[in-house]
Amino acid sequence: MKKENETELLFGETIPETEETARKTPVTRKRMARTSSINITEKKASYGKYKKAKGGLGHGLKIIPLGGLEQIGMNITAFEYEDTIIVVDCGLSFPEDDMLGIDLVIPDISYLKENISKVKAFVITHGHEDHIGALPYVLKEINVPVYATKLTMGLIENKLKEHVLPRPVKRKIVKYGQSVNLGCFRVEFIRTNHSISDAAALAIFTPAGIIVHTGDFKVDYTPVNGETIDLQRFGELGKKGVLALMCDSTNVMKPGYTMSEKTVGKTFDNIFADNDRSRIIVATFASNVDRVQQVINSAEKYGRKVVVEGRSMVNVISTATELGYLNVPENIIIDMEQMKNYPSEKLVLITTGSQGEAMAALSRMAANIHRKVSIEPGDTVIFSSRPIPGNEKSVSKVINELSEKGAKVIVQDTHVSGHASQEEIKLIYTLTKPKYAIPVHGEYQHLKFHAELAQGLGVPKENTIILSSGDVLELTEEHAALVGKVQAQGIMVDGLGVGDVGNIVLRDRQHLSENGLIIIVLTLEKYTNQLLAGPDIVSRGFVYVRESEYLMDEAKNIVYAALERCLDNNVSDWTKIKTEVKDSLSDYLWKKMKRNPMILPIIMEVE
Amino acid sequence: MKKENETELLFGETIPETEETARKTPVTRKRMARTSSINITEKKASYGKYKKAKGGLGHGLKIIPLGGLEQIGMNITAFEYEDTIIVVDCGLSFPEDDMLGIDLVIPDISYLKENISKVKAFVITHGHEDHIGALPYVLKEINVPVYATKLTMGLIENKLKEHVLPRPVKRKIVKYGQSVNLGCFRVEFIRTNHSISDAAALAIFTPAGIIVHTGDFKVDYTPVNGETIDLQRFGELGKKGVLALMCDSTNVMKPGYTMSEKTVGKTFDNIFADNDRSRIIVATFASNVDRVQQVINSAEKYGRKVVVEGRSMVNVISTATELGYLNVPENIIIDMEQMKNYPSEKLVLITTGSQGEAMAALSRMAANIHRKVSIEPGDTVIFSSRPIPGNEKSVSKVINELSEKGAKVIVQDTHVSGHASQEEIKLIYTLTKPKYAIPVHGEYQHLKFHAELAQGLGVPKENTIILSSGDVLELTEEHAALVGKVQAQGIMVDGLGVGDVGNIVLRDRQHLSENGLIIIVLTLEKYTNQLLAGPDIVSRGFVYVRESEYLMDEAKNIVYAALERCLDNNVSDWTKIKTEVKDSLSDYLWKKMKRNPMILPIIMEVE
Repeated sequence: MKKENETELLFGETIPETEETARKTPVTRKRMARTSSINITEKKASYGKYKKAKGGLGHGLKIIPLGGLEQIGMNITAFEYEDTIIVVDCGLSFPEDDMLGIDLVIPDISYLKENISKVKAFVITHGHEDHIGALPYVLKEINVPVYATKLTMGLIENKLKEHVLPRPVKRKIVKYGQSVNLGCFRVEFIRTNHSISDAAALAIFTPAGIIVHTGDFKVDYTPVNGETIDLQRFGELGKKGVLALMCDSTNVMKPGYTMSEKTVGKTFDNIFADNDRSRIIVATFASNVDRVQQVINSAEKYGRKVVVEGRSMVNVISTATELGYLNVPENIIIDMEQMKNYPSEKLVLITTGSQGEAMAALSRMAANIHRKVSIEPGDTVIFSSRPIPGNEKSVSKVINELSEKGAKVIVQDTHVSGHASQEEIKLIYTLTKPKYAIPVHGEYQHLKFHAELAQGLGVPKENTIILSSGDVLELTEEHAALVGKVQAQGIMVDGLGVGDVGNIVLRDRQHLSENGLIIIVLTLEKYTNQLLAGPDIVSRGFVYVRESEYLMDEAKNIVYAALERCLDNNVSDWTKIKTEVKDSLSDYLWKKMKRNPMILPIIMEVE
Repeated sequence: MKKENETELLFGETIPETEETARKTPVTRKRMARTSSINITEKKASYGKYKKAKGGLGHGLKIIPLGGLEQIGMNITAFEYEDTIIVVDCGLSFPEDDMLGIDLVIPDISYLKENISKVKAFVITHGHEDHIGALPYVLKEINVPVYATKLTMGLIENKLKEHVLPRPVKRKIVKYGQSVNLGCFRVEFIRTNHSISDAAALAIFTPAGIIVHTGDFKVDYTPVNGETIDLQRFGELGKKGVLALMCDSTNVMKPGYTMSEKTVGKTFDNIFADNDRSRIIVATFASNVDRVQQVINSAEKYGRKVVVEGRSMVNVISTATELGYLNVPENIIIDMEQMKNYPSEKLVLITTGSQGEAMAALSRMAANIHRKVSIEPGDTVIFSSRPIPGNEKSVSKVINELSEKGAKVIVQDTHVSGHASQEEIKLIYTLTKPKYAIPVHGEYQHLKFHAELAQGLGVPKENTIILSSGDVLELTEEHAALVGKVQAQGIMVDGLGVGDVGNIVLRDRQHLSENGLIIIVLTLEKYTNQLLAGPDIVSRGFVYVRESEYLMDEAKNIVYAALERCLDNNVSDWTKIKTEVKDSLSDYLWKKMKRNPMILPIIMEVE
């Protein structure tokens, strides 16, 4: 790494907590208008009467989610007070099914760019893609310091290395319990538990009051590495008075408690004991360092060597080991090339591909296209994960392929969630006793359910606020009001192109994908409109042409007839000719085969 | 319906059961080679040494699944003995994610066509699409009688009405307990329970022994309409001696028992009682007549009128009512137009769309594009279904949209499966005590799990047989052997086209969908190769051209330069020119933006 990129530790910036930083603001003039979780339709219909975001009601704190609401992923929220903006998280989301060919989606940061002089920092809660993934793109345009805990920063640095940034970015590591002053805010990092180490909740001390943002979290009383979430601090903040709690909604519909990460380790031990004659392959999320630790623990206990496979798995394990988040006994990890020196029952592979991703290591093994590992009868494959919604079928495909090759596939009790279930969420409300509840991280159904849960815990209905991405919420000790709307549609990334694929392009891709394409080319003489060449017909993705010669001949006749009609009638407007040709062929194909390919007539002109 | 299409009842064909119809065949000469569930790889690799299906080992019964194995859907199995073939079920499957633009997939019936003189009948177990959906296509080519129970036949007739068949098809309704003689087979219909009324298992009495095929089934001790599965008959057959059991594997990985359909009725009653001030909308599978019955029961109990919405829902309800499978109190069903005459709390809508299908009624209501029903705050929407794997995200989308409009969405305890769980499957094995276990209806993981479960119940490992679609299994009292392989790939249907879209077309659609298209057209003088017009560039699904003028200009320059290189060097081979142009542009775009559109150079020739 270059010198400018080096990490500064942030000892000097921890400041004693005072009430000053959380000074009161004047009461806003209007009572909260429509922030109830129920009247969302009405709320949406009423934006017109709010002032623009920059105006607002008065001097309150503005909370502006630029993503992450009404969706899982792309978490990013701006907190603004007078001339200070800080941004919590900067994640990406993966494309929806209808975003054909799109690689990923990043937030629209127009609002931040318009207010760039105010933006003090990005404060990152943890190192998952949906919280850090858009940083390399966004930092190119908004180069401000990034604050995060150590492992989170390590993962951010890995990402930044892959992108060329025009200028180096200041990165500051923060420890749990430390605070940073950012303009008129002070942000404290609070220890939590999650499916990645070093996750933090944030206490944001603002002139309007204290905002607690949980990030993604769970309550794990017996974490694998590190300590339990700092519940005491949540309680302490609650005693001081929390203006608003922004709490993870991912698992809010799940009753009870989320199980401890350690239960998975017990399952691993049992599986290792039961399958002591077979090779074991464990697929999990690369970023789940504690999960990887538990595989290594079981491997050590049962005398197996560990092979790591899959690019992101190798990256994360090396970063985590380097930074001290993985405790790897000496010589336990071996290279894939050394595998042949050990019998199957002395080996465990840790690999990517737990979501059935087509190009991930496990999927390649299952499909017999992995260059170095083939699945053998007797292999035991553990999926230490749950399919993310949308991935169920691809995971199932990989399981079938593994089973066909004689592997035993285990999915039972091999995973726990990283997100708080209902009872844990209730606990955080009960500790922090917020005045306002602003559910975050979830689709609308989760946010709504969360709002109702908060109401059940005593937050008044009018103080439970369901935001949409782009909403500008103004908050003071006394009032909350939606005061505007900023751009917050995701921006699609396709290859190196950022935002150059929009709805028209996607609609064309959709059309092409479902129906294929017919191109009609012809050359006309410029002045006489005489047909010099063509019409030729080229098709792709439509029918297998060799077996449909009759159809293609017919199509050519239809086109020729349409063209003759135009030329005989001295139609010289090319747009009209194209329309006539296109419509004739389209009608024919629909009647003949109920299909609707994209038809592209192209006319060339020769003088 | 035309006269030729009329349904004949089958009283005359019930024959007394004798041992004669199940006469023994001579022992086959070879012992079963490789039908173990474990050595699937070995098995597959060994096909080469089997004789062709037509030859086989001797005089055994041949069981030839033409679909339905290694997949959920497209169930169709041929049973062959000497000059008799009967086909059990004839279903379709829905396209996989990579079958872009494909509407449905039907079985390859080449084997049946090659042996058409032997084919006596289609015997259908129940009226779900994956068991009857391909009939209209297949009957066009193989016009033999269809046997089914009354409701199943009603649904088949609905399908046949929508297709124009060259010749009328004989359709014969069979009652539970009745048998039909088909060549040297006798087939008995046995009452079962499933998520559609009138489902049947089959006892196929063959010269080689009795085959029991469960169809899709569950054991429901308290069914809504009709009676419990005829367990006594399964036991009786078991006492006689069952050669092979072909048993539903769909839910084999679920421990315990599948709940009774009636439990859903209780949930409905509770929901109706709890939500007595709001309109209730229930989305479920149209074909689940008993489920619809229970909605009507609750509606009657709580004094609500019923509105039916969605084309397939209207169809099935009218067929089921007509045939006596739905008990609808007078005047309870009202037209949608009458809705306005009743207050919300006096209405319940039964609708399609429980799988989040984009064009189904509920999805249109949720998206605010239904012409007659808008979701209103306070509506209660019941999803009486589980998302079929692959539909999770679309269902979730609809739930979010409904929640945003203020509807309360209920998904808990509102559905039970129609398939047997482990304990029910164990029960059927214990009643029938088959010599061979041939799991059906499932992906490989299910079949394998099922085989192991059968082994746990005492079926010897070498007698549990996992088949692939296309396998030809020869079975006698003494032996089982794979004796060949027939064509059994699904055939894709796109619009009216059956089988005219193959892998090349799909590959093009995939390419177009992910990367879009660039067309380069130019006109050359025939003899001199002089450039008369172009090169012009047309793109679709690539970038938003208006905002990418620079890029398109650059692309044009690249193409022009490549062309000039060719023409200057007197390259006259158009293939070479096209390749040069294509490769140059492709390289440029990959370097510039890491994208890989389909590039189509088209050269026109003018004399």
